[in-house]
Amino acid sequence: MNTALDLMLLGQQAKTAARRLATLDTVTKNNALLAIAAALLTHQDAILAANAADLAAARARGTSDALLDRMLLTPERLAAIAADTCNVAALPDPVGEIFDQADLPNGLRLHKRRTPLGVVGVIYEARPNVTVDIATLCLKTSNAVILRGGSDIGASVAAITIAIQGALTSVGLPATAVQSITDPDRAVVGALLRLDQYVDMIIPRGGSGLHRFCIEQSTIPVITGGLGVVHLYVDATADLERAVPLIFNAKVQRPSVCNALDTLLVHEQVAAQLLPVVAHELCAAGVELRCDPASRAILADQPAAATWRVLPADPTDFGTEFVGMILSIKLVNDLDGALEHIATHGSGHTEAILTNDPAAAERFTQEVDASAVFVNASTRFNDGGQFGLGAEVAVSTQKLHARGPMGLRELTTYKWVGAADYAVRK
Amino acid sequence: MNTALDLMLLGQQAKTAARRLATLDTVTKNNALLAIAAALLTHQDAILAANAADLAAARARGTSDALLDRMLLTPERLAAIAADTCNVAALPDPVGEIFDQADLPNGLRLHKRRTPLGVVGVIYEARPNVTVDIATLCLKTSNAVILRGGSDIGASVAAITIAIQGALTSVGLPATAVQSITDPDRAVVGALLRLDQYVDMIIPRGGSGLHRFCIEQSTIPVITGGLGVVHLYVDATADLERAVPLIFNAKVQRPSVCNALDTLLVHEQVAAQLLPVVAHELCAAGVELRCDPASRAILADQPAAATWRVLPADPTDFGTEFVGMILSIKLVNDLDGALEHIATHGSGHTEAILTNDPAAAERFTQEVDASAVFVNASTRFNDGGQFGLGAEVAVSTQKLHARGPMGLRELTTYKWVGAADYAVRK
Repeated sequence: MNTALDLMLLGQQAKTAARRLATLDTVTKNNALLAIAAALLTHQDAILAANAADLAAARARGTSDALLDRMLLTPERLAAIAADTCNVAALPDPVGEIFDQADLPNGLRLHKRRTPLGVVGVIYEARPNVTVDIATLCLKTSNAVILRGGSDIGASVAAITIAIQGALTSVGLPATAVQSITDPDRAVVGALLRLDQYVDMIIPRGGSGLHRFCIEQSTIPVITGGLGVVHLYVDATADLERAVPLIFNAKVQRPSVCNALDTLLVHEQVAAQLLPVVAHELCAAGVELRCDPASRAILADQPAAATWRVLPADPTDFGTEFVGMILSIKLVNDLDGALEHIATHGSGHTEAILTNDPAAAERFTQEVDASAVFVNASTRFNDGGQFGLGAEVAVSTQKLHARGPMGLRELTTYKWVGAADYAVRK
Repeated sequence: MNTALDLMLLGQQAKTAARRLATLDTVTKNNALLAIAAALLTHQDAILAANAADLAAARARGTSDALLDRMLLTPERLAAIAADTCNVAALPDPVGEIFDQADLPNGLRLHKRRTPLGVVGVIYEARPNVTVDIATLCLKTSNAVILRGGSDIGASVAAITIAIQGALTSVGLPATAVQSITDPDRAVVGALLRLDQYVDMIIPRGGSGLHRFCIEQSTIPVITGGLGVVHLYVDATADLERAVPLIFNAKVQRPSVCNALDTLLVHEQVAAQLLPVVAHELCAAGVELRCDPASRAILADQPAAATWRVLPADPTDFGTEFVGMILSIKLVNDLDGALEHIATHGSGHTEAILTNDPAAAERFTQEVDASAVFVNASTRFNDGGQFGLGAEVAVSTQKLHARGPMGLRELTTYKWVGAADYAVRK
């Protein structure tokens, strides 16, 4: 098999399909989405059998139970995925939106028109549901998509793609609007990343290693993200009683995701009052605290200290995404100390301040450079669903094109359209 | 000299400066811009002397007169550059703009706030004025900038940078907000393109070779452009009399730029009436026509044909940016033929249709995939000034972040800001 040639063909087909998709109206796209939802259910046996084969092979390789669960499809999960597809059909279609209109002195009636990007390439891990998520969001925005799921779920992705392509064909759309790369060779990812002749955007969905690989190798614009070193600063004026459940929510509600809290920064004036209560709540939930000397000194004095897991922080505990039940804690002299720490250690993902001082809130929101900055709200809100986007394609920590949660609109671009009465430039 | 280490330092300094710039109000930035305008004039002798040295060296290398003129600074040109700087001060400041506000059911009061990108890297050719253009547009948008001008103008860029940095210092701003790389070694460009730890966006200002180099080498998002293969399609319903001066404007007004017309596509029903008049006008202005067999047959029959420069087109004459007084011509059967030709040969820069049929205009604007699509308007309008942007940083032919002419707003990004009353995620 000649990977480079095969990929060129895939790219050409995707680009041709994209031209067709760009002419579709919303009703046609929504009908295709409903056909996909139905096809997932009619193809259920084939999809679940393929998934069972993937799982058996992964189990034989000694894959952990957590990863196996992430790979697993069941009739219930497949039904939920089909329901999500119907929900995408119900979302507003951003394509065709007209904005920034202007009548100019040179005679030009100008506007911007929202258009599809063209062809989107998505590289993701062993989560079969992402196949459907991304395919449907791309279809809704008239983009063709080339999918490359983790090699662990190759059979599942292939079976799902067959179902999707059958549905596309059944409503008269090109099957090549949604294509999957099933070659398990990792070199194929590198080749996909250089297919700039056909692919307009790459979205990596995975850890920071995948993101870094894409940044290094791609000649196509990459939506990067994947790393969230998240801080929350408790200012001297914060309502400490209400701070505790908020900190608990930021750390404990779902510690494995990128908007979960990693480092708690506390104004030294309120640390003695706040930290014992925080430690009481978090440690009871199983959180390990890694404390700078000043915060550790406060906690060491507490009667319950012996039952808590409080360790001295080493320097690498600041600037680390823990992706689990660990929290680093540091005292700061003031807002400037918090801003300096975040500028040094933040990853530009999610940062928060708790304060009742509007001036401190304004300085924090202005000066912290991150995709989302919260005042008196949990860091866990940095999410497409919570932001009302209806869907989340990815969370971007870069600054171009889209920053933070990306919804349907972020799968589009625009063109300038200028009309006139046979006008020439003077 | 250790280029990699020097560049790291430059990047660190730029990032530190960017933090300071992000806190500035508009008045402070405008004062700095006016100080730069004044400094260009007070440093006039030093700048012109450096420029004379660059020119002497270039002349000794046998540089063409056209390139030497592009490099040349005079007191008048320097005064015009200073005036442009004052004009940038007068433009509205996009930073801090608040948009997409929403009060969400989860208690979040959400908005997007327009913010600087951070650090911008710009690589450009032997045009000393670009140094000031880009530095001032970046300062206006609170971005730090690292400039790398062509090695031919190294002394000029260094002298201009000294003037700018002196002005910044005089108003209390960090000189490192505007830095130039004066190392003539070309390897330094490759190193700059990998400084993703510090630099948020790369803008190449030059030909397609430079753009391709940046796409291949950069780990930083690149704003690509630089190649305009521009088509104009004359539909059967077009007003042919008014089409002629428009085609003339598109081709002849400034043939060296990227929005100048390259290929004329003509509906076969109107070709016999239109083309002789077009040939008469264009050939009189010195344009060479490269025609497909059908259009050449029409022109060969004309009485004046012997005085025209009409050559048979070879396949490479379609899909080529001529950057000069050459136009390729092709007849098409209908709108579909024009759309197919543009999809195959266009570079996504600028495309136009002349038609009096609203349905044809709508199909053309919807289906043509380009940064700007014009109906009954010259392709020369694809320009930041003509679009009323006040300034043009670059013209992008890629689809992410910004497409077409980029003004001040396209030198910014946004952050999400969410405030609540100690809200937690359910």
